[in-house]
Amino acid sequence: MVADAVLLDAMSRAIAESRSAAGVSSPNPPVGAVIIGERGDVIAVGSTRPPGGPHAEVVALEAAGEAARGATAVVTLEPCNHTGRTGPCARALIDAGVARVVYAVADPNPAAAGGADTLREAGIEVVSGVGAADVVDGPLRGWLHRQRTGRPLVIAKIAATVDGRVAATDGTSQWITGDAAREDAHLVRSGLDAIIVGTGTVLADDPSLTARDPDGVLRPHQPIRVVMGHRDIPGSARIRDDSAPTRFIDSHDPAAVLAALPDALVVLVEGGPSILGAFFAADLVDEVHAYLAPVILGAGANAVADLGVSTLAQAHRFATVAVTRLGDDVRLTLRRGSTA
Amino acid sequence: MVADAVLLDAMSRAIAESRSAAGVSSPNPPVGAVIIGERGDVIAVGSTRPPGGPHAEVVALEAAGEAARGATAVVTLEPCNHTGRTGPCARALIDAGVARVVYAVADPNPAAAGGADTLREAGIEVVSGVGAADVVDGPLRGWLHRQRTGRPLVIAKIAATVDGRVAATDGTSQWITGDAAREDAHLVRSGLDAIIVGTGTVLADDPSLTARDPDGVLRPHQPIRVVMGHRDIPGSARIRDDSAPTRFIDSHDPAAVLAALPDALVVLVEGGPSILGAFFAADLVDEVHAYLAPVILGAGANAVADLGVSTLAQAHRFATVAVTRLGDDVRLTLRRGSTA
Repeated sequence: MVADAVLLDAMSRAIAESRSAAGVSSPNPPVGAVIIGERGDVIAVGSTRPPGGPHAEVVALEAAGEAARGATAVVTLEPCNHTGRTGPCARALIDAGVARVVYAVADPNPAAAGGADTLREAGIEVVSGVGAADVVDGPLRGWLHRQRTGRPLVIAKIAATVDGRVAATDGTSQWITGDAAREDAHLVRSGLDAIIVGTGTVLADDPSLTARDPDGVLRPHQPIRVVMGHRDIPGSARIRDDSAPTRFIDSHDPAAVLAALPDALVVLVEGGPSILGAFFAADLVDEVHAYLAPVILGAGANAVADLGVSTLAQAHRFATVAVTRLGDDVRLTLRRGSTA
Repeated sequence: MVADAVLLDAMSRAIAESRSAAGVSSPNPPVGAVIIGERGDVIAVGSTRPPGGPHAEVVALEAAGEAARGATAVVTLEPCNHTGRTGPCARALIDAGVARVVYAVADPNPAAAGGADTLREAGIEVVSGVGAADVVDGPLRGWLHRQRTGRPLVIAKIAATVDGRVAATDGTSQWITGDAAREDAHLVRSGLDAIIVGTGTVLADDPSLTARDPDGVLRPHQPIRVVMGHRDIPGSARIRDDSAPTRFIDSHDPAAVLAALPDALVVLVEGGPSILGAFFAADLVDEVHAYLAPVILGAGANAVADLGVSTLAQAHRFATVAVTRLGDDVRLTLRRGSTA
């Protein structure tokens, strides 16, 4: 029997593994799985493949082969019990002969739930809740949010001066924040389903909106680039290149844009200010990433445009969950006080 | 002979002691002194009294009495060598019979310097530079700044939402930041020489601008409340009460306002936005305290008004020296990259 600390270690490894599935597995949850031996030795790992491909448990079991027999499977989400495009993971675990299954979070989806019961009925020991808080707050947050609310988790990104400006009066905005902040933003992008911008931002800044590593190389996963609004985007715009998929949605309505992304688990709204204002006004922002630079401009566009708030009591208040220094800049991570 | 760690401990104590003199000793430097015995035991402490009163060394020596003989005096600044309103501290240390004097920072003032030489000539061992960085960066920063530049160190304070707003469109602004941020701001006030605001802020918010403890009780030292601008302030304004001194300066020129405060070592510019803009535009801001709340307003006054910057290359850039969480808010402490 492996000890609790060993299970927590294995769950940390499963969480880390699941991060490579972020944005890749959608609309399925980005799950991580680890097969460990009696002394906690890692036999195999796996994460959810793109839709139609195997789930994390099956990837790990295939990698483990016969060594899975009598081993412990550690998974970030309760193994599924239903046959979709792939067979049920609970069945695969039983067939592989694992002695025990440890998972973090129960599956809230009625169609897929019941995996734990199936495993127990087959005589497999089942332990739930290990590392649950880290998983709920981390890799599965977007998927759980979608299960609960029917829409993706929405992150609003601001990159501004400490006096709240995102450009000088002549429109110059590159760069307010420094290298470390921009690298962090690219790392965030690499786990997203979509980046949403307005046509105005595309016309003003001609951004590529790709996720690149510090050397400028495209990361393995690229979120969909979503351009919302009515204005035409020229054929020469960077956003039309083939480095990532792009969608044009002829609407200013945040709810309509989210509805057009039925598979998305986590999306980021990059701007401009009026698009951000519209998402805040519609109460559709779950998290804010505010990258703030030690710079004063005193004029120029504000980070967020009018969202219909005229008195302080109506202001949109968030909770600060993290403060991260990135070179000379700081990233504030804010979240809704209560879940939507 | 006491060891280095003991001297550093004693210097920390001297620095702590000097904080009670911040804003009180001006225009003299807020110095702290500790008299320690052979094993580092603290015999007496002292800090600079208001102008005309004794300096830190003399306060500590008087408290030590005969116990000072053969002891070590640890002081944040080189003991002065000149006779002003008080006698030279170097002489007092010699007369008291101390065996050794340890100080952090040499006196840059030609009229007062030479204390170390006088002590050595009297056969006293002198050690300099102990804890110098902490003192230069801490309690003596404003005084050293004034010695170097002929004007006080100027701190610009911003208390804003993460999107850079200091009030909603209807003018409501109480409170954007929370209790912990406001308590921090009151603690900062208690060590200042002056708080500068515009007449507009006084007319709009009727602030008291006093330094209070968390229970609302006035702290021992109150900075001068300086109101700059041309508009009349009614007799009923809180700023006219007797809880702190108040000065009215009929000018919009930041340099003229600073020139009217010849004794000030550290001043804080609280606002409003146009006053802050004027100080930034005049390149007279040495440090920024940006208190940012996890709040989005999307409209309302910006923290800093136009300072004549139209393109990003002209933006005022600072270095981030500290990031402090204060409840749900964060305080960014920014400083000039180079000294003025």
